[in-house]
Amino acid sequence: MNIRIGQGVDFHQLVEGRDLWLGGVKVPHIKGALGHSDADVLLHAICDALLGAAALGDIGMHFPDTSSEFKDIDSKILLKRTCALITKEGYRIGNIDASLCLQAPKIKPYVAQMQEVIAGIAGITIKDISIKATTTEKLGFVGREEGVVAYASALLFPL
Amino acid sequence: MNIRIGQGVDFHQLVEGRDLWLGGVKVPHIKGALGHSDADVLLHAICDALLGAAALGDIGMHFPDTSSEFKDIDSKILLKRTCALITKEGYRIGNIDASLCLQAPKIKPYVAQMQEVIAGIAGITIKDISIKATTTEKLGFVGREEGVVAYASALLFPL
Amino acid sequence: MNIRIGQGVDFHQLVEGRDLWLGGVKVPHIKGALGHSDADVLLHAICDALLGAAALGDIGMHFPDTSSEFKDIDSKILLKRTCALITKEGYRIGNIDASLCLQAPKIKPYVAQMQEVIAGIAGITIKDISIKATTTEKLGFVGREEGVVAYASALLFPL
Ligand SMILES: [Zn+2]
Ligand SMILES: [Zn+2]
Ligand SMILES: [Zn+2]
Repeated sequence: MNIRIGQGVDFHQLVEGRDLWLGGVKVPHIKGALGHSDADVLLHAICDALLGAAALGDIGMHFPDTSSEFKDIDSKILLKRTCALITKEGYRIGNIDASLCLQAPKIKPYVAQMQEVIAGIAGITIKDISIKATTTEKLGFVGREEGVVAYASALLFPL
Repeated sequence: MNIRIGQGVDFHQLVEGRDLWLGGVKVPHIKGALGHSDADVLLHAICDALLGAAALGDIGMHFPDTSSEFKDIDSKILLKRTCALITKEGYRIGNIDASLCLQAPKIKPYVAQMQEVIAGIAGITIKDISIKATTTEKLGFVGREEGVVAYASALLFPL
Repeated sequence: MNIRIGQGVDFHQLVEGRDLWLGGVKVPHIKGALGHSDADVLLHAICDALLGAAALGDIGMHFPDTSSEFKDIDSKILLKRTCALITKEGYRIGNIDASLCLQAPKIKPYVAQMQEVIAGIAGITIKDISIKATTTEKLGFVGREEGVVAYASALLFPL
């Protein structure tokens, strides 16, 4: 076994009347992300990057949005289960780097907390989980504040 | 020489009257992808990730869509040629992880076949090619079923 | 310390009356990219990939677009500063692979020059910086020539 690469991308609509969960942290905002689970776009992209690196399928395969088991579920539980699958497959996380694309709000004040939450669940240090953010400069559905996108990359090493 | 990273992204319009080729597999659907070749967005993103990792240019440079040689060509041939270029440059594929973004159809029933096709061409095992899929939650041109996007990441090792 | 992965994505509007800087090269075009700095979408994505791989935050944190220090700044300076931060953190660049998504103009004639500029700043060889390009097949804001997107991936090794 060798070092392996994974990548993930996830999308959610932003709507009023929902909480905005990003990286396991509730971010105060006028809109929240719509989805079957808590719709944490950042954790979902990270789960997909980890599953993909281990060639274990994708988040929709493991945690289907048609299952009542995952209705309104805290995505931190999905990340925890994903990490258990990775370990069982014989891998450990090297590092994760992710980007959030959203027009508002500014997430910089919450990044350190997101790193702590994710590192705690994944059993890595906060230096092994990087979270970046960018607007789309008002372009597209992210720019119109109709949705949010997250990208994640990960390296896995053999245990 | 050392381990190297590559990434690729590709886009195609979805239109009626075309076949939908994804990962080397014809997926039954009311629409297909428009392009000069068979418009296999997944194989194109993978080719670009492999070429990029080896710093060999991009798919448009090697297989120009202005050339009659590549009109309606099976993208499996492009992947085969790409893999030959990688080998010639002194690299072997570690693993590939890719994501398809499309609103419909569900591609899960075809993923195992796509893995087999790609692994066969690239001379890797099916555990070294991961294919994930996500909708864009109805957002943007993918959400309106006007197009399809694929992202791919790859690691190369010295031969 | 171990090998690390990073990824970046950046977006800019295309407008008349601005220069189009891509990869440190001024590309002749009827439109240019709008931004606080010179709006070089490719260099920004690369900076974010490098910062992310080293878990050093993001480009907005280091070079805020609210600071007059960075008004109209040449993004090559931002890349140079980013590379200094990476070195100080104890890393060297393995390779970088990037993709530009833009409908026009064709950037192929400028790729070799971009590679030389970036390699010179980053202290790597031109084989360690790959730049690819794709249209979005007329889809979305890139397809309407309203904006440009860049993706970048990078590997870092311990010094
Ligand atoms: Zn999701
Ligand atoms: Zn294509
Ligand atoms: Zn930028």
